[in-house]
Amino acid sequence: MPEFFNVLPPQRALQALLDVMPPPGLDYDEVAVDKALGRITAQDLCAAEDLPAFPRSTMDGYSLRAADTFGASEGLPAYFTVAGEVPMGRPSRVSLSTGEAAGAYTGGMLAHDADAVVMVEHTQQVDVDTIEVMRPVAPGENVVQPGEDVRRGETILPRGHLLRPQDLGGLTALGITRVKVTRRPRVAILSMGDEVVAPDATPAPGQIRDVNSYTLAAQVSLAGGEPLSLGIVGDEYEEQLAAAREGLEHADALVLSAGSSVSVRDLTADIINALGEPGVLVHGLSIRPGKPAIVGMVEGKPAFGLPGNPVSAMIVFDLVVRPALYHLAGCVRRSEPAATQAALTHDIASAPGREDYVPVRLTRNGNGELKAEPIFGKSNLIFTLIRADGLVQVSLDKAGLYAGETVSVRLF
Amino acid sequence: MPEFFNVLPPQRALQALLDVMPPPGLDYDEVAVDKALGRITAQDLCAAEDLPAFPRSTMDGYSLRAADTFGASEGLPAYFTVAGEVPMGRPSRVSLSTGEAAGAYTGGMLAHDADAVVMVEHTQQVDVDTIEVMRPVAPGENVVQPGEDVRRGETILPRGHLLRPQDLGGLTALGITRVKVTRRPRVAILSMGDEVVAPDATPAPGQIRDVNSYTLAAQVSLAGGEPLSLGIVGDEYEEQLAAAREGLEHADALVLSAGSSVSVRDLTADIINALGEPGVLVHGLSIRPGKPAIVGMVEGKPAFGLPGNPVSAMIVFDLVVRPALYHLAGCVRRSEPAATQAALTHDIASAPGREDYVPVRLTRNGNGELKAEPIFGKSNLIFTLIRADGLVQVSLDKAGLYAGETVSVRLF
Repeated sequence: MPEFFNVLPPQRALQALLDVMPPPGLDYDEVAVDKALGRITAQDLCAAEDLPAFPRSTMDGYSLRAADTFGASEGLPAYFTVAGEVPMGRPSRVSLSTGEAAGAYTGGMLAHDADAVVMVEHTQQVDVDTIEVMRPVAPGENVVQPGEDVRRGETILPRGHLLRPQDLGGLTALGITRVKVTRRPRVAILSMGDEVVAPDATPAPGQIRDVNSYTLAAQVSLAGGEPLSLGIVGDEYEEQLAAAREGLEHADALVLSAGSSVSVRDLTADIINALGEPGVLVHGLSIRPGKPAIVGMVEGKPAFGLPGNPVSAMIVFDLVVRPALYHLAGCVRRSEPAATQAALTHDIASAPGREDYVPVRLTRNGNGELKAEPIFGKSNLIFTLIRADGLVQVSLDKAGLYAGETVSVRLF
Repeated sequence: MPEFFNVLPPQRALQALLDVMPPPGLDYDEVAVDKALGRITAQDLCAAEDLPAFPRSTMDGYSLRAADTFGASEGLPAYFTVAGEVPMGRPSRVSLSTGEAAGAYTGGMLAHDADAVVMVEHTQQVDVDTIEVMRPVAPGENVVQPGEDVRRGETILPRGHLLRPQDLGGLTALGITRVKVTRRPRVAILSMGDEVVAPDATPAPGQIRDVNSYTLAAQVSLAGGEPLSLGIVGDEYEEQLAAAREGLEHADALVLSAGSSVSVRDLTADIINALGEPGVLVHGLSIRPGKPAIVGMVEGKPAFGLPGNPVSAMIVFDLVVRPALYHLAGCVRRSEPAATQAALTHDIASAPGREDYVPVRLTRNGNGELKAEPIFGKSNLIFTLIRADGLVQVSLDKAGLYAGETVSVRLF
């Protein structure tokens, strides 16, 4: 098929794009920490102070001098005079002499001159002022030292980090309440095709309602971007080019969803080439579904031509567009794609030299073991993906997968 | 330790809660499909029509009568008169007689009386009106039949389904542009403790800044809920009770984050018991970290007492609070928790009868294999979780995990 002059595996197609993408810009928003979930840090964040700021007890018990507990045992406990306690949230007003202890709470301060905490379970109250300690403790035992969580000056989160709940907590712990995050990449989405009508229209014979504007917009949102829907245009080249150009002016990336017929694919390539340099980089991916996809770059902005088939479009988005959007947003490190392991219930055939993505449904058998049941369908209908919980990949070098094999299911 | 009168594994604690939770209410929002990502369907959704509505070609080529291709081969092709073509998005205006074919596009209609499509690659143009067909096709070949994707009357999405990108596309394909989804559960979060100050405050000696209000609010958001932050109150019982009661009035669930000292834990249990019936259900979980957690139910609303330690609080949230929120939102089926497989780099010790959750950092070695490196820390400091990519679970019945073992890492 001559139109596929440059068919590449998705990883290599992505790399071809990343190779010519400019480094992420310095454009950022400053947002309150409680609005920063899922955003990406625009700069290295450093600790301005030690955390914790004071020696903290990790147990309920008594702070004391570890040396005073030397040799203590159940049979021969060490006796301590209780010199007071250090209440939660208060500085210690108690100083210890040898043989003295002070009540300590989990998370609270130690008394002055104390260097360890003995758990209350290892003590016995003798009278109102006296306790027995039944075990020796080492210096520093049951204590978090200042700076042990994080040290002043340490980089706590590097630039390009996707902020998770714990990251927000780390920031508030250090008194950082606003954070510079990269702007969400804006992604223009154009649905093309004489057969495509809006979801609220009643399709005439031969027409179908728009699916890809909605699936792709949702995928953009999940990838941390802002979808900018350009609506639907027919198969008129000039009209498509004008809509794409207009959309790209207001966006950081362009996604064209076109039909999968050869003529339409060539039109999509022409549009991407007409939008700017260098234009089309990759024309065709060695995957199924998703082969008729186009990856390009125009004037520093990535542009994608996705197949009109909704399943193909979603898979190509996931493998190529999504990582490109993370790159645009300056994301250097993020989670592995969500996946789970399951035992395949049926054989899956494939062809070497091609990556196959097969939708599967996950079920648990009586023992709670996860099973992956392939959903075979002749042409990757949208409801195949709706019935599916994820995708199984058959890699390039394999001719298939066998029933009973443990496979990794990409949750989708 | 007498205060743990009812220590349970997290799964059983969750079940004890679900057993007394009322079925999810019928409260719903009606939202536009493009605002419904991540929401949960409040009713079964059915297809009002067949999809596709007409026989669609899955290839570029010619629609024809399959019977006319019988016996066709490279050596002895079948000849067809091209009677026209069916353009994309238009009804067929071409009717075929025996020995006639009509141009067909991927996604387009077939000509009247055609029952199959031959791929263009299996034809040869003879002259402007005539083609050779080099292979026989079966009836229905390269055609999606009406209703093959989804049939009129079929339930396309059951009630309680968490809406993913493909689900939204399936709805628009069927002309469904608004959808009834369950209301997001509102979760009141109260941070308690004399030592806790707001993130923008400068802590005095013995004080720490609030972390849990922020980590837990972010976890609530990720679980599809709406966090309602009640701020911070000190260790005064009446004040805590009043704040909790007030918060619960405006919320569907209550999360109390308290210190981890025994006195504070008992106070939290007292509050949950004072808020309503049946009160505390589970007092202590057989996990580390996270043991000093309380699960309760007050007047039909779940109430949780989470440990003050941020790491413990996050893990208990993930294991118990999150699934309870999904239940509240009426979610019947959702994705498996995101996880990945990796080879452990170091031994992890545990104790039988207790589930351990150990933060790990994921790295790839030279061969691209994923490695999980445990991050050991004596008291589960917040930055342990920030440095981590996920958690490895050591299950109840194991005394540990060994270096080199392949483990499932829950992405966190």
